Amino acid sequence: MWEIKISGFNQEQIIHHGNQFLTGHLKLGVRGTLDEYRKEQLVAINCPLVYDQVGHGWREPVNAFNPLYTVIHVNHEPIDVLNQEPIEHHQILNIKDSTMRRHSVFKKEDMLITIDSKRFVSANDQRAIIGVYQVSINQDATLDILTGIDTQIWDINGPHIKAVQTNDKPYLKAYGVTHEKGYKIQTLKYVDLKFEPHHFKTLTTSTGVFYNIKVNAKANETYTFYQYAVIGINEDDYQLLTTLDEIASEGFDKKIIKHQQAWDLKWMDADVMIEGDEDAQLALRYSIYHLLLLAPHNYRQASIPARGISGQTYKGAIFWDTEIFMLPFYLNTDLNSAKHIIDYRIHGLKGAKEKAASYGFQGAFYAWESQEDGFDACTDYNVTDVFTKRLIRTYFKDKQVHISADIVYAIQTYIHRTLDYSILKQGALEVILEVARFYLDYGKYSILDDRFEVWDVMGPDEYHERVHNNAFTNRMVKMVFDIVILYEAYFKKENDKYFDELVHGIGFRKPLQEIHQIKDKVYQKEMLNNLLIEQFDGYFKFQDIPLKELLKKKLHENEYLGGQGLAGDTQIIKQADVITMLYLFKDDFDLNTMEANWKYYEPRTEHGSSLSASMYALVACMIANPEYAYPLFMKSATVDLTGLSKAYAGDIYIGGTHPAASGGAYMTAIYGFSGLSLTDKISVNPQLPKSIKSLSYKIIHQGKKYQIYVSNKHKEIKEVQS
Amino acid sequence: MWEIKISGFNQEQIIHHGNQFLTGHLKLGVRGTLDEYRKEQLVAINCPLVYDQVGHGWREPVNAFNPLYTVIHVNHEPIDVLNQEPIEHHQILNIKDSTMRRHSVFKKEDMLITIDSKRFVSANDQRAIIGVYQVSINQDATLDILTGIDTQIWDINGPHIKAVQTNDKPYLKAYGVTHEKGYKIQTLKYVDLKFEPHHFKTLTTSTGVFYNIKVNAKANETYTFYQYAVIGINEDDYQLLTTLDEIASEGFDKKIIKHQQAWDLKWMDADVMIEGDEDAQLALRYSIYHLLLLAPHNYRQASIPARGISGQTYKGAIFWDTEIFMLPFYLNTDLNSAKHIIDYRIHGLKGAKEKAASYGFQGAFYAWESQEDGFDACTDYNVTDVFTKRLIRTYFKDKQVHISADIVYAIQTYIHRTLDYSILKQGALEVILEVARFYLDYGKYSILDDRFEVWDVMGPDEYHERVHNNAFTNRMVKMVFDIVILYEAYFKKENDKYFDELVHGIGFRKPLQEIHQIKDKVYQKEMLNNLLIEQFDGYFKFQDIPLKELLKKKLHENEYLGGQGLAGDTQIIKQADVITMLYLFKDDFDLNTMEANWKYYEPRTEHGSSLSASMYALVACMIANPEYAYPLFMKSATVDLTGLSKAYAGDIYIGGTHPAASGGAYMTAIYGFSGLSLTDKISVNPQLPKSIKSLSYKIIHQGKKYQIYVSNKHKEIKEVQS
Repeated sequence: MWEIKISGFNQEQIIHHGNQFLTGHLKLGVRGTLDEYRKEQLVAINCPLVYDQVGHGWREPVNAFNPLYTVIHVNHEPIDVLNQEPIEHHQILNIKDSTMRRHSVFKKEDMLITIDSKRFVSANDQRAIIGVYQVSINQDATLDILTGIDTQIWDINGPHIKAVQTNDKPYLKAYGVTHEKGYKIQTLKYVDLKFEPHHFKTLTTSTGVFYNIKVNAKANETYTFYQYAVIGINEDDYQLLTTLDEIASEGFDKKIIKHQQAWDLKWMDADVMIEGDEDAQLALRYSIYHLLLLAPHNYRQASIPARGISGQTYKGAIFWDTEIFMLPFYLNTDLNSAKHIIDYRIHGLKGAKEKAASYGFQGAFYAWESQEDGFDACTDYNVTDVFTKRLIRTYFKDKQVHISADIVYAIQTYIHRTLDYSILKQGALEVILEVARFYLDYGKYSILDDRFEVWDVMGPDEYHERVHNNAFTNRMVKMVFDIVILYEAYFKKENDKYFDELVHGIGFRKPLQEIHQIKDKVYQKEMLNNLLIEQFDGYFKFQDIPLKELLKKKLHENEYLGGQGLAGDTQIIKQADVITMLYLFKDDFDLNTMEANWKYYEPRTEHGSSLSASMYALVACMIANPEYAYPLFMKSATVDLTGLSKAYAGDIYIGGTHPAASGGAYMTAIYGFSGLSLTDKISVNPQLPKSIKSLSYKIIHQGKKYQIYVSNKHKEIKEVQS
Repeated sequence: MWEIKISGFNQEQIIHHGNQFLTGHLKLGVRGTLDEYRKEQLVAINCPLVYDQVGHGWREPVNAFNPLYTVIHVNHEPIDVLNQEPIEHHQILNIKDSTMRRHSVFKKEDMLITIDSKRFVSANDQRAIIGVYQVSINQDATLDILTGIDTQIWDINGPHIKAVQTNDKPYLKAYGVTHEKGYKIQTLKYVDLKFEPHHFKTLTTSTGVFYNIKVNAKANETYTFYQYAVIGINEDDYQLLTTLDEIASEGFDKKIIKHQQAWDLKWMDADVMIEGDEDAQLALRYSIYHLLLLAPHNYRQASIPARGISGQTYKGAIFWDTEIFMLPFYLNTDLNSAKHIIDYRIHGLKGAKEKAASYGFQGAFYAWESQEDGFDACTDYNVTDVFTKRLIRTYFKDKQVHISADIVYAIQTYIHRTLDYSILKQGALEVILEVARFYLDYGKYSILDDRFEVWDVMGPDEYHERVHNNAFTNRMVKMVFDIVILYEAYFKKENDKYFDELVHGIGFRKPLQEIHQIKDKVYQKEMLNNLLIEQFDGYFKFQDIPLKELLKKKLHENEYLGGQGLAGDTQIIKQADVITMLYLFKDDFDLNTMEANWKYYEPRTEHGSSLSASMYALVACMIANPEYAYPLFMKSATVDLTGLSKAYAGDIYIGGTHPAASGGAYMTAIYGFSGLSLTDKISVNPQLPKSIKSLSYKIIHQGKKYQIYVSNKHKEIKEVQS
């Protein structure tokens, strides 16, 4: 139950497998590509959260030089999957310890050549990659091994590294600097041969620096070598060299044991055990694996990009995905990571205020695609028109204003779950007030209706642009105002002058008065006679066309459906919107309302975002329909296993992993199937689908750790020692 | 100086000449097509203000069966411009008396065939067309004349007439009914031959009902016949027959004299005489001709479609063109027409309230494309995407909210010019209050900025959709609130309880209080350091690309530039927007501001609407730059002479005449070149372009008629007897 394995080689799945077999951590992503792959196969040694911009291209994370490149020639002929179909081929990811291995057998007349390699991104070092490579042949033959650093990099908007140079002593080395900030990017590699070569020389070409190793190979003998590499981002040369020395001296066997121990520790609090459904168990663990890969446990003020560490898609930026879909996992299992995610946004307040000001608004308008310091990498043109090849004006950046409230929601949840009120004084309260100020300015008071409205927004459903009074957004705005009042009361009760001082310091006296006036007048979409909540003003007047019919109208496979596209004036939505509101504010709504809206909106939802299925799954469990939830849960949990998610929006590549779907799958298991409810008390209300007999997991809540077990017959919540 | 004449036949100009040689009146438009033309040549016997809708097609005015169709065969060969190039050809419109004639000479070996015809739409009858047709041949020959009613109709979204039948006794007759309202549409025709035919029979075919007249024609003899036709819309058969009888009995010669007398009378108060510039004189008179054609003098609650009586373009609907660009002519020359234009909108209040309610707003939101009873014929899709052939969502109907204020502006101007306050009690005050209520609901109060903003609108510049705080629109909203207060004070001063009673009757007490609170807080775009006024929030941040560069990017000649099109995120605008505000509210701005904005916006204006040039011309005169104004004036005045205006928006035909440009040309002459200013006093401040020596015209103001003369040396304003 811990292995992801594919058998047989399929050229068309190369991109998908690069995501599926991903290893790394939040500072280094290594795509699950094979030893012989190059940039054409989308190899990436991704350096998340390290950004660069070339010219007017999109600003995106840097990919480093690849130290894993290895190919062999046998009797002077190349032996690799790109040149020859293997007769046996497996690629295996062990998600328990985050190691990837491959096994390939090639046949050349009577000769069988077997390649085995294994590698991992060390969990205990800054940016180190360690591997072993083995080859054996069933006959005597000449074996040429080329292994080294490939300096050709797959970039979407690159090349990001200029002035590239290589060096072959004392180790292989490639380095260069980024365009924008001049970061020095280095890859160092050391190879430890476990056999005696007949020739050994270094080779420097325009595509990299390599060792060329010749062996007169004996039949059935295994030729093994170890690879040790470190990636440096603006690091001191000497220190990097020292790190490589230490890793190599310690050696593969010791390093992998320590790596496995580190991973065992991660799993200890994170695992969710499922009885009765092996597919669900593996898929859920695979989801948790991705969340563990991405945990910012050791990185202060670091957060998680929407495509994780799988490449440059979405500019390597951080979206609301993190706060709404991933944070719940860390709040249950890893509070360091949770706090760092919040800290990242506190640190981004300045950027958010600048963004608001740039649009003429006061307060904090957080980045839709957040890079370092809260810089918004989102452009006004995110999709290409497939018909004219022109860029289409999109409104993610300037109209998806709910992002600021999502962050306040995350802060509030963090405090509720940890009782760590100290974060308020560390900047979180200022974030809350500045976000409130932003909405107070963005929204407007409707005189005749005596209510506060929020016009010209985009809700989670991005197909409908520039709508008025999006139910979700308006509810989030009301929440922000309520939270301001909540903490005003909290500090008063604590007899703590911090709130007043901050209000004074940032000129928030008048806004605060206004918030008191307006908070109960924020327009909340009323439930209609049929209990339905209109997604935004006028939505129900839009064309009500079945999704299938809509898709039939497409003239081009990749045409963009949103905005002026086919879905824009229909009731077809991209992803959960009203349903997301129902989940986040479940106490506001009764079950009949939830059910009516679920049944209305689900068939009208394309699930064109990986964030969609889990919200529907969660609400399906709330209305006691876990069988509705199960396929949606599996869809979320397997999105990076099946590779069926959209790889293109218009003409733009959006592939990569989907950690928000992983987070959503986790949430569905915990809050949906086991029905965990966390107020100041803990309870479970199991809604297990038929195939699942029981669920077992740990959580941390308000400073205590609990072991929870649910089946249809039994529920148990037991405090355990941390 | 009264004739529009073209010489030589040009196939490609057929559509254009149909507009250029238009005759008729507001209840009947006869396109300037030749006798032998059929629907392929866009013949139209247009019945303005009589609408029909077929299926889901656009609702548009009905075209009636054509009674003018006449072709000849000579020696059994067809002789007409479509089959044979004439060796001599003239088409002439006399704008003094609204008669059209044609003269064509065809050569067939040694034979010369000469055709002359003349026709007019009687100014003295409901819907009557009267003509004469003459043919002579320089040799003996057999002459076949086919003349009758062509039942094939050019329709854009038709056919509108179903159950078509014909009859040939006692007159030629074709009739049928409209789809939507079942109106009976009839064409009756009587032919009076002035020669003895050798054969005379009636012929009924699937394309109409005709007389077939054979003559053994003598060399150089002229064969003449008169044509008398009436068009009936839901009229009593007997009455229609009687009308035809009367016209035919009175005969062509008497009828044309009476027609000319009627037209003399029209010109008496309307003419503007220009000394020194014959081109300008003819172009201006041609503009006035169109305004005279369209005057709703005899028609209560009737107003003028944006494409006049030239066909079905723009659904035959009434736009703001009438209030802002045409009404000024009637206010100067024909108060009946002016009042009927206002009455039309008063009558449309119910429709406007329904439209507002359909969008969830209170008050009166007038139709963007107004048909009878204020029904909005505008659709949400007015342009076709040339690349995908799909309809593009446009926002003319739902976002061009300034239309309601334009009507209040017209009412206010009417009252100021006529001192006819009685119209307030006839419904105009209710219009004003309901329009104010609409804006009070549509606009929102911005709490932190303490101002009233108007979001999500489209200004006159339709290329920029869904903008916030359009300077023009916000100024118009403020004007509406000011006018409410003005009349509150007026009735109070008059000690007239009508205002209070109405306020009570329509529940306007609270809105009125709110208007008092808010009227001085309506956000007016401030002038920046460089005196520029930003067209809407964020406009100056848009790409500042020269118009020529933008047009170079076009991939298709007819592609739509607005919205998501090429101009949408640039500073290129379709038409005068800020400049229109400067003209309408000239007292708000000093000359430096006007000049700075004119110089900024003019090069960024495509003048893609015929409403644009005149506003720039008017403001150019205000800043004492009549030489800037002159080419723009000529552009407006000649738009239907040159035929150079856009005939397509996307893939949709938008051809026809441009009465708003005619009105704009008139305004430029009067308010621009002669600098007429009408407060409670009258003054002129001539800004004559070099070529114009003097201007002379009459106007009516506050119950008195004046003769005005201006030259560079002399100004004279003289009261004259009405």
